[in-house]
Formats: sequence, C-alpha cells, structure tokens
Amino acid sequence: MAQAGRVIIYGGRGALGAKCVSQFKANNFWVGSIDMAENPEADVNILVKKDENLQQQESSILDSVNSALNGSKLDGIFCVAGGWAGGNAAKDLVKNAELMWQQSVCSSLISASIAAKHLKDGGVVQLTGAKAALEGTPGMIGYGMAKAAVHHLTKSLSLKDSGLPEGAYAVAVLPITLDTPMNRKWMPKADFSSWTSLEFVSQLFLDWASGKNLPENGSLLQLVTKNNQTEVVPS
Amino acid sequence: MAQAGRVIIYGGRGALGAKCVSQFKANNFWVGSIDMAENPEADVNILVKKDENLQQQESSILDSVNSALNGSKLDGIFCVAGGWAGGNAAKDLVKNAELMWQQSVCSSLISASIAAKHLKDGGVVQLTGAKAALEGTPGMIGYGMAKAAVHHLTKSLSLKDSGLPEGAYAVAVLPITLDTPMNRKWMPKADFSSWTSLEFVSQLFLDWASGKNLPENGSLLQLVTKNNQTEVVPS
Repeated sequence: MAQAGRVIIYGGRGALGAKCVSQFKANNFWVGSIDMAENPEADVNILVKKDENLQQQESSILDSVNSALNGSKLDGIFCVAGGWAGGNAAKDLVKNAELMWQQSVCSSLISASIAAKHLKDGGVVQLTGAKAALEGTPGMIGYGMAKAAVHHLTKSLSLKDSGLPEGAYAVAVLPITLDTPMNRKWMPKADFSSWTSLEFVSQLFLDWASGKNLPENGSLLQLVTKNNQTEVVPS
Repeated sequence: MAQAGRVIIYGGRGALGAKCVSQFKANNFWVGSIDMAENPEADVNILVKKDENLQQQESSILDSVNSALNGSKLDGIFCVAGGWAGGNAAKDLVKNAELMWQQSVCSSLISASIAAKHLKDGGVVQLTGAKAALEGTPGMIGYGMAKAAVHHLTKSLSLKDSGLPEGAYAVAVLPITLDTPMNRKWMPKADFSSWTSLEFVSQLFLDWASGKNLPENGSLLQLVTKNNQTEVVPS
C-alpha cells in the first residue's frame, strides 16, 4: 500500500500527540515525532534536549528533520506541545511567563521553522492556542501571553511573504479542555461531556493533512464541545 | 517645593525614556530609572545586568526598587524599553523572536511585578505595544509576537484579581514611529511630520501619573500622528 503522506507531530509523546501519531499511522502516513521522550509508534523520533538553549534546540531539530526527510516534503506539521501554569502579577509572574514561553511559544516557533524549510506547497502547519487567551487572563497571565503570541504567529504565518511555502496553511486550534487522562485525574468531578475528545482533534488534523476540509488560512479555531459534540468555531 | 510624586521609568536611558525622566524631573517628581546604563538626571539608577537570567534580573531589580522606595508607593511605572527586529519564518525566526521576548516582554513583565508590589492604589503601569501587532506581521514575526504578548499582558493586568493594587490602571501605548535620533538616522528620507514626538508621549505619561486624563483601564492606545498632530486612538 502506498504511503498516504508525511507528517511531523511536535509533542508526539503527550496525550494528544500520541493519539495523532496513532491516527496518522493507522491511515498509512509516515510520522516523525518530536518530543523529550520517544514514541515507539512513530517512524522517526527526534528528541528535544532540555539542557540545550532555544537556538541550539532549533538547530539540532532542524538537522534531524533534514536527515529524516532526505529531501521529501511534509504534508503537515502539527504542534501539540504545551503546558499550563496559573498565577497573576503578584506571584511568580516572571517565572511562569518564562515557563509558558518555553513550553508553548518555543515549540511553535520551531514548528514554524520546520514548515518554512520542509512543508510542501499547500501543506499545513497547525499550532495550539487557547480560547481563554482571546481575552485577558488575569489569573493565568503567563499562559495567556504565550498563547496570544501563538495566535499572532499563526496569523503572521498565514500572510504573504511569511516565509512559508506557496499556498501553505497556518491554522491554530484553540481548545477549552481536552479529554486527557491527566485532566481527568486533576478534575475528576468536571463535566466530561463538555471536554473535547482526542479522537476529534486527531481526525481534524488527518483531514487537513489529506487536503480535506481545510479552514481559512490563519484561522484561530475554537473547539467548543457540548454533550460530547464538538463544534469548530472560527474566532 | 513638595514632591509631586514618584515614578519609575524602565528604559530611562533610551531616547523616549530619557525624555520621560526629564519631563518628570521638570515637574518635581522623584524618578527612578531602570536601564543597562545610568541616567544621571534620575534620582536613583537601577542597572539591569545583562549576564543575569530573567529570574535573577527580576529579583535584583525588585530588591533595588524596594530599597530605593523604602516603603513609599509609586504613582506610575512607565516601561519604554524595547527593540525591533525584522524577519519572517524562513530566516532567524527563533533567534529574533527570542531577542524580542527579552527586549520587550521581559521588561514589561518586570514592570508588572514592580507594579504588583509598589504601585499605589489607583496608580498607573504603562507598557509599550505596537500598532503593527494588532494584525499579523509576516515580515517581522518575532517582533509582532512579543508585542501581542505585551498587549495581552496589559489587558490581563486591567482585569479583576490580576494582582495589581486596588484601582490601578494598566495601559499600553502603541506607537507607529517615534521621532527619535536613531529613527532619523536610519530613515533620513521619511516624512517626519507623521512621527510621534517624544514630548507628546512624555506629556501623556505625566498627565497619567498626575491622575489626569486617564484612559479606560486596559486600553491599547494607538498614537497616530499626521501633520505633527498626534491623536490617541483606542484599539
């Protein structure tokens, strides 16, 4: 059976990332995973070295992607790495903002760099924003700032002369709460029927990498789930 | 003559910062300057040590501010530090985004930390955004992301439970081009009548620190100059 295409999952070892790796593998894609630990299901694993600074990380990762692709182009790059920290201006503002910058912004920036070099014409680069960051976030300031920066990156990448290949799509998904084991563990009494399933998100990405149902370039897509049904709502 | 109040200028040695120091001194304010070099006109200079990491910088600066104020409160904190770098996703994206994070976001974060601890009730913390970053910025992606984060910080600080003192104002100014010696040097053929004078901006800040003409909390104020007249346009 011929290969359906090639994608990279940034954060391929996390809950959503691992689901995406499985989804793409089940649909006959070549899958590269970038994360701090290996995902054995991926065709290639590129490990992020935590002790390297950001520019070293970018350079190591770009070298590894270059070797792994050996001249082939990517149909999609899906960046689902990220983290969460609360906190307002009165406590640990700088510390939390720096952590969120590292976890959400740096992974998005490196994904954009990979896209500029290895995405095919008309391919898709997906980043992960947050619905909460469409407004001010006084109780989680660093998190909101990082996600606002990711939203801005998405819009910038979608515009002319952004450095992405011809016809490429840049799209962000803005989850509210994803239905992951960790979220179930930390919020055991929440209403799970308002959480977005990983299956839904990974199916969305599979469609996009297959050239189906692509949203408007530069979209910030809120994932709004009610009664286990998810609606994709452009911001 | 009694002191009119107390302010801190973050970036007090830059073109706009030095103008603000002069303006406040001429109006009988106590002025602290935070910058990498001293401004001899300021009452107190707090030097940013470039070899310290962000959390060390924050901690050193907060210690110095604490000593300098000795229990007094600030009427205003004005953060005019920042920088500019161009570049799209195809070249130096990570490098430029990191530089912009350091120059624009880190100074804004530390200013917000100072505000949480030392601003008086009803005082003002001003940050510096950019009109360009209200939209995507494909030709200067790192710059736009950093300014989008500053806009988000401003909105977050203006909301309930942000950690700022009771009734405090958080406001960003969004310049287009400021009429500085460096800008005249690098853009000698530009139309200077569309550039915003440092006098206008410093007068605005003086008003705010004096409790006059305060804009709506959380405002992102575009500074739009035509024929040497500047209009303040909320976004």
